[in-house]
Amino acid sequence: MDKRLNLLVFSGEYDKALAALIIANGAKEMGIDVTMFFAFWGLLVLRDPEKYNPHGKSLFQKLFTLFTPKGTEGLTLSKMNMGWVGQMMLKKMMREKNKPMLVDFLNGARKKGVKFYGCKLSQEVMGFGKDELIPEVEIIEVYEYLKDALNSDVQLFV
Amino acid sequence: MDKRLNLLVFSGEYDKALAALIIANGAKEMGIDVTMFFAFWGLLVLRDPEKYNPHGKSLFQKLFTLFTPKGTEGLTLSKMNMGWVGQMMLKKMMREKNKPMLVDFLNGARKKGVKFYGCKLSQEVMGFGKDELIPEVEIIEVYEYLKDALNSDVQLFV
Amino acid sequence: MDKRLNLLVFSGEYDKALAALIIANGAKEMGIDVTMFFAFWGLLVLRDPEKYNPHGKSLFQKLFTLFTPKGTEGLTLSKMNMGWVGQMMLKKMMREKNKPMLVDFLNGARKKGVKFYGCKLSQEVMGFGKDELIPEVEIIEVYEYLKDALNSDVQLFV
Repeated sequence: MDKRLNLLVFSGEYDKALAALIIANGAKEMGIDVTMFFAFWGLLVLRDPEKYNPHGKSLFQKLFTLFTPKGTEGLTLSKMNMGWVGQMMLKKMMREKNKPMLVDFLNGARKKGVKFYGCKLSQEVMGFGKDELIPEVEIIEVYEYLKDALNSDVQLFV
Repeated sequence: MDKRLNLLVFSGEYDKALAALIIANGAKEMGIDVTMFFAFWGLLVLRDPEKYNPHGKSLFQKLFTLFTPKGTEGLTLSKMNMGWVGQMMLKKMMREKNKPMLVDFLNGARKKGVKFYGCKLSQEVMGFGKDELIPEVEIIEVYEYLKDALNSDVQLFV
Repeated sequence: MDKRLNLLVFSGEYDKALAALIIANGAKEMGIDVTMFFAFWGLLVLRDPEKYNPHGKSLFQKLFTLFTPKGTEGLTLSKMNMGWVGQMMLKKMMREKNKPMLVDFLNGARKKGVKFYGCKLSQEVMGFGKDELIPEVEIIEVYEYLKDALNSDVQLFV
């Protein structure tokens, strides 16, 4: 199928990232080309939880790096998080039904060749180095996102 | 008009469900085909407030069913809910201007023949039985959602 | 480029409005036609912070007008607002990197000729007068939004 799907992932929440990555994996399995552009809080989804590099960060950027979630499993729910009870409950319910976790969907998308883009402006403001994100990410400007979106058959803002 | 609109309703909030259903009703009135795919919190919009069936639910699913809103009028606002004050105020303001409520827009969409889909993965994880949702809902997988989205002229993620 | 972008701005949050207006400005710079339809909380983005006209407002509408943000710089973040600490920190980080503020992106979009629409139903319910919003806004119904969306190449719900 010669079709293209373009997802702008703005949200850095467990449930929304799950929705985006389930759609991305499903599309890839159907032979649809998938591009994901992570902007703003969305960049948090792409953080490598093992990597932290304070080099070149301002004080605010250091604080921001410390107080925001480190990668997929640190993300909270967009509602009913209730001090992590909601997030833990959701994960329990997913395991009961033998569903993959968010990190599995992320790794699935990486293996299936989903194209990962990060927003340059967000990355500069938040101060994340390329070495703090998963290696597949390519940093681009909004113009390149728009070109890709215009060439796609479905575009969603998550 | 031979046009198609595809809405993915992820959010289970009063104001966002209102936006999605106002768009769906408006489109139908213009002769546009409308498909709504309810995933994750969006499934809460489709709950029949009178129906509860604990059969086959795990403990977590029972708790989840009890602590989440039961149908349209139990949904909170995405912001300024302020312990229901915001939701009640919004409803008052809508009534003052003789606007229909969310439940009216939902029933309008059902009468006008909007196609209602529910997400299989969400339904399995949350443990809602088909008999706990409005009868028009058909449960489908993400692949069927994607096929429908690819065949639509406008796709939105709400 | 003979392309069109259609943004439905539902959210009235600093970060989401920023995302929408950065996309709108970028698209205009590429020669893409841009329409922004502000509905529900999105109308708050378009408020002129200097203007308040109680004429014709019900008691609830007066309260609503008083307790909601007045224009771009009064908007909160969609997450990590933490009693404005998050919003101030984000603005600091944007200034450190010499990025324009939300109000600059809004004014840029106005100068570049982005078409601003406001949702009639939302405006009636919330009770905002046309004189309380930026002068470029034209109030339209959902049908006109849908016509425009159907004629666009990319549609996003922010």
